[in-house]
This record gives sequence, structure tokens and C-alpha cells, in this order.
Amino acid sequence: MSDKIRIAIAGYGNVGRGVDTACAKNPDMELKAVFTRRAEIKTFSGVTAVDVSEAGKYTKDIDVVILCGGSATDLDKQGPLFAEMFNTVDSFDTHAKIPEYFSVMDKAAKESGKISVISTGWDPGIFSLQRLIEESILPDGKACTFWGRGVSQGHSDAVRRIPGVADARQYTIPVASAVEKVRSGEHFELTTREKHTRDCYVVAEEGADKAAIEKTIKNMPNYFADYDTKVTFISQDEMDAQHSKMPHGGFVLRSGKTSPDNSQLIEFSLKLDSNPEFTASVLVSYARAAYRLNKRGLTGARTVFDIAAADLSPKTGEELRKELL
Amino acid sequence: MSDKIRIAIAGYGNVGRGVDTACAKNPDMELKAVFTRRAEIKTFSGVTAVDVSEAGKYTKDIDVVILCGGSATDLDKQGPLFAEMFNTVDSFDTHAKIPEYFSVMDKAAKESGKISVISTGWDPGIFSLQRLIEESILPDGKACTFWGRGVSQGHSDAVRRIPGVADARQYTIPVASAVEKVRSGEHFELTTREKHTRDCYVVAEEGADKAAIEKTIKNMPNYFADYDTKVTFISQDEMDAQHSKMPHGGFVLRSGKTSPDNSQLIEFSLKLDSNPEFTASVLVSYARAAYRLNKRGLTGARTVFDIAAADLSPKTGEELRKELL
Repeated sequence: MSDKIRIAIAGYGNVGRGVDTACAKNPDMELKAVFTRRAEIKTFSGVTAVDVSEAGKYTKDIDVVILCGGSATDLDKQGPLFAEMFNTVDSFDTHAKIPEYFSVMDKAAKESGKISVISTGWDPGIFSLQRLIEESILPDGKACTFWGRGVSQGHSDAVRRIPGVADARQYTIPVASAVEKVRSGEHFELTTREKHTRDCYVVAEEGADKAAIEKTIKNMPNYFADYDTKVTFISQDEMDAQHSKMPHGGFVLRSGKTSPDNSQLIEFSLKLDSNPEFTASVLVSYARAAYRLNKRGLTGARTVFDIAAADLSPKTGEELRKELL
Repeated sequence: MSDKIRIAIAGYGNVGRGVDTACAKNPDMELKAVFTRRAEIKTFSGVTAVDVSEAGKYTKDIDVVILCGGSATDLDKQGPLFAEMFNTVDSFDTHAKIPEYFSVMDKAAKESGKISVISTGWDPGIFSLQRLIEESILPDGKACTFWGRGVSQGHSDAVRRIPGVADARQYTIPVASAVEKVRSGEHFELTTREKHTRDCYVVAEEGADKAAIEKTIKNMPNYFADYDTKVTFISQDEMDAQHSKMPHGGFVLRSGKTSPDNSQLIEFSLKLDSNPEFTASVLVSYARAAYRLNKRGLTGARTVFDIAAADLSPKTGEELRKELL
């Protein structure tokens, strides 16, 4: 019998595929099944795809299910269903609903005697963890998070819904001078427009009114109206060749005073070639923690705030103290 | 009765004074005593200085003692003595001796029913924590830590011991092009000389042979011989005016592959006006964790790897999920 941590993926989109790849990088893990509504798919690793309705038959074969659905649609319902049967890890990111989701998942996981790690990935996730560490060390300070340069799926979708748009990709770009201002500790009250710009690449349908599309984008409330937005029309070929990757990243900065004379700056940053693959890698490391916590008899919902870093690593305490401390 | 966390400082050097200042920034903490061999000193906050031999009389009045002695001399002996009476936090940093120190402190703290957080601060400490998080997320990758620009106390002392040297300050400086190479993921096998340079400011005694001093510095094994070292002779006035601060900092970088096409870069950095004040701020946040863990009935030694970030913060789980996740 294998003593590896037996993983299942629920939902085989970009993040799900990333979890498939990430499991292969972690020798203490074994991907056992993919639960999906499209059981005909071929998985990257060749592991069996199973209709999601059959998941309940696998409770004895899986240690942790990594939920890779989106929070907007899937996780609200799928989360508690899985938490009633399995240890789970997810990347629930609808910020306003996190307290409610935590409470629902906590109840489900306590009843089933399992652990559910919610809202991990990089933001929410590792970025949140950094915000907490930074704030705890420098309570008398100011914090700022910048995102990008990276593709925003939500903003890209919003542009794609405009009549006459065949395809679109939106990059969120931190304003370099604003990042420098924050690093210098001099100027922390930045407006939305001062922090990020938005860069849109758009494929227009034949005969579409490009000027009208550009105007619609730039005036779209919430998404673009509060930002300096640039719109560039390109061909579908150029879109496919130049904009098929999903890079992202960002900065979590905190500047604080420890005495009247002394300022301290803490900065954490990510530069990612692939947002979904990195998210997946974080989910997999927290799956290890979910497994460990549950083995200790712990149950209920957890976030990145509640998990000690040692539980993310396959190494023993002795190894960690010797190699990394 | 106060429900604040009652702190004592053992050792009132630069870090001890930093803890004094840091306690004032944390409204849930109250500094109750300073244990020192020089009980005549005036403390920054005005709190009573007590001869260290009297510490045992305070076991009922103190929740956590923050040990601010140096690892080379004080902590080896002082650590276990305090762990037999109090929850403790320290910045033990003699790397080769950490496993042994952990085991001694673990035994003492288990016997007394207390918690001892060892080897925290920034390196070892927050930097170690970042190395662990980065490695857990990107197992297929390479890591690199750079230190500086900052004053190295050990190297400054080594120069001061050279005959003819009245005063000295040594700055460790990361080589910018080496940092860039690591960021680009291209070149991780850097030699010692490629990673850091050493910049020495020296006040020579009257009539001293400056050329001989410079040669002695540059050829000093372990400290300088493996580095590109610059030596600048200055006056004591210039030393006092320009080099009285203790800045430091550094970078913890990890670049990893999540699939053949995609590289991901994680970077954590510190830019500190005051090394001892920042170290002290980290110690204080871990004092909160030591108090919390012991309140839950836990005992023994811990490192930054074993402590969940939520325990560093005065906020509740609900507040953290709402404000920082």
C-alpha cells in the first residue's frame, strides 16, 4: 500500500491541469482521480477522469480533494458537498463572501471530521499571508498591494461581452512610479488611477465600429472607468501568437516605523509566467497541510493564516531546522 | 488586573532597547521588567531594570521573557535557565548549533510547561520562513539569499581587532548584477565572490601603517579573502556622523518551474534602517505567539516554521479573514 498523499482534482480547467502537473513535482503525492462534468477528457498525467456525481464512491481512496472550480459559480455549492466527504483545499476568492463561505465550510468539515483549507492560492493566499506577517511585525506602518503585470480573466471577459468584440485580453499593470513611491515610504494615499493602468488587446469582428468599442471599454463602470486604459486592436493570429499565456504577479509592500528615526520596508513579490500553474502549486502545498492537520485529529475550516509553514513541506522538523533555518 | 501580555527583556543592548520601543507599538503588550547585569541603567520606557539574578522572583508577573543576549556568549547558558521558568523568545543565530540548542530548549521548556520560540528575528527568522514557503510551493526550483546593504557586526569587530585600527564599520553589499541574474532564473551557481562585496570604513590610529591594515583586511581568511573588499580610511568624526546607524536588509529569491514552459519567481526583501529594531519587532510578534501557544497548554521549543501567522497578530480570526485575506 502506498503511503503517499492521495489527491483528487475536482474541475479540470486551467487550475485543475496545473494541479495535475504540480502533483508530479511532489514525490510524496499521488494523483488518483479527476472529478469532472466532462469525464471524456484526457488528463495530462493520464489519471482517470470520473463524472463528478461519482465522487462519493471514492471517499476511501482519496486523502484530499483539490477544488479547482471558480468561486463565482462552482465553489459556493461544490465546496460544502465535498467537505461533507473529504479533506478539501480551494481558492475561493469572492472577497465579500469569504466570512460566510468559511462558516459554511467549517460546519460541513466539522460534521464530517475533515479539514477544509479555503481561499488559498496567491491572492487570496500567499499575498494574504504576507500582509498578515508584515502587519504583525510593523504595526505602526502602511501597506499596499499592487497586482500585475498580468492577465485579468474578469476584465478580459468583460471586454469580450461587448458587441463587435471577437476576442480580448486585458493586462493589469502596476504604475512603476507608484510602486517606487510606496517603497520610499513617502506617499501611501494613492488613488485607484495612480496605482494601476489597464492594457486591452482586442480582436474586432469584421465591420465592427472600433471607435465605439474603445469608448465602451474606457467608460465601463467598475472595470475601466476609474483607470487609465489603453486599447489596441490586433488580429486573431496576433492574439493567438502573442497573448496565449497567462502571466501575472504583484507586490505586497509595507513600510513602518520602529522608532522616530527608523523606517523599515518589507516587500514580497511574484513574477509568474503562469497564474493558474502557480495557484495550483500553492493549492498542492496546502493539500499536504490539510492531510497532516486531519491526521492529527483536527477538523473544520482553515485559511493560510491558521497553518504553520512546516506543514507545507514534505521535510521533517529536524531537516527544516538544519537546512532552512 | 491587566489582561495585556506581560513582557520582560533579558539583556539591554541594541536589540533589548528595540524590544522596549516595539512593546510601545503593540497595545496588547506591557513591558514589566528588564533583566540585566547593569541594573543601574535607565530604560527607554522607564520600566524597572532588575539584576538578572533576581529574575526568578518574577515568574508570576511575566508571561514571556524576550532573550536579547548574543548567541555566541549569552544564550547558550541563559536560554535554558530562562526556559526553566518562563515562556521565552530568542534570536539564537549560531547556525551549526541550532539543532543542539533546539533540543536543550525543548527539554527545558517541556519540563517547566512553557513555550520557547528559538532563532527568530530576520535571518534566522522571517527569511527562513520565506525560504520554507518558497521551497514548498516551488519544489522544482533554485533558491538564493542575498544580504545587505548592511552593517555586519562580526566583520566590523574583526577589523577593529587589527593592530592600528581605532574604529571600523563593515558593510556587506549584494552584487546588483548577481541579484538580476538570479531574478532572471538564468544563473544560479554563483560563487561567494560573485554574490557580495565588502565595504570597510576604517579609522586608523595616529601613525598606523594604513597600507599594512588594508592588506591585513583584504587577506583575512573567512571574513574577507573570498570577497572583493574595498577599504576606505576616514576620520573618527566622519565615522560618528556617517556610520552610526545599523542599516541592513537582503533578498530571499526562488525561481522554479511549474511546467517545461513556465518559470515562476518569488522574491522577499527587507530594507531596514535599523537591524536591531527590526529584529526586536519580529521577536515581539513571536512573543505574542509564545503566549498564545502556552495558553493552549502547548509546551516545548518552536521555530518560525511551527507557528501559524494568525498567532503573530492581535486580531481575531474573523478580523483577519475580513481585513487581510
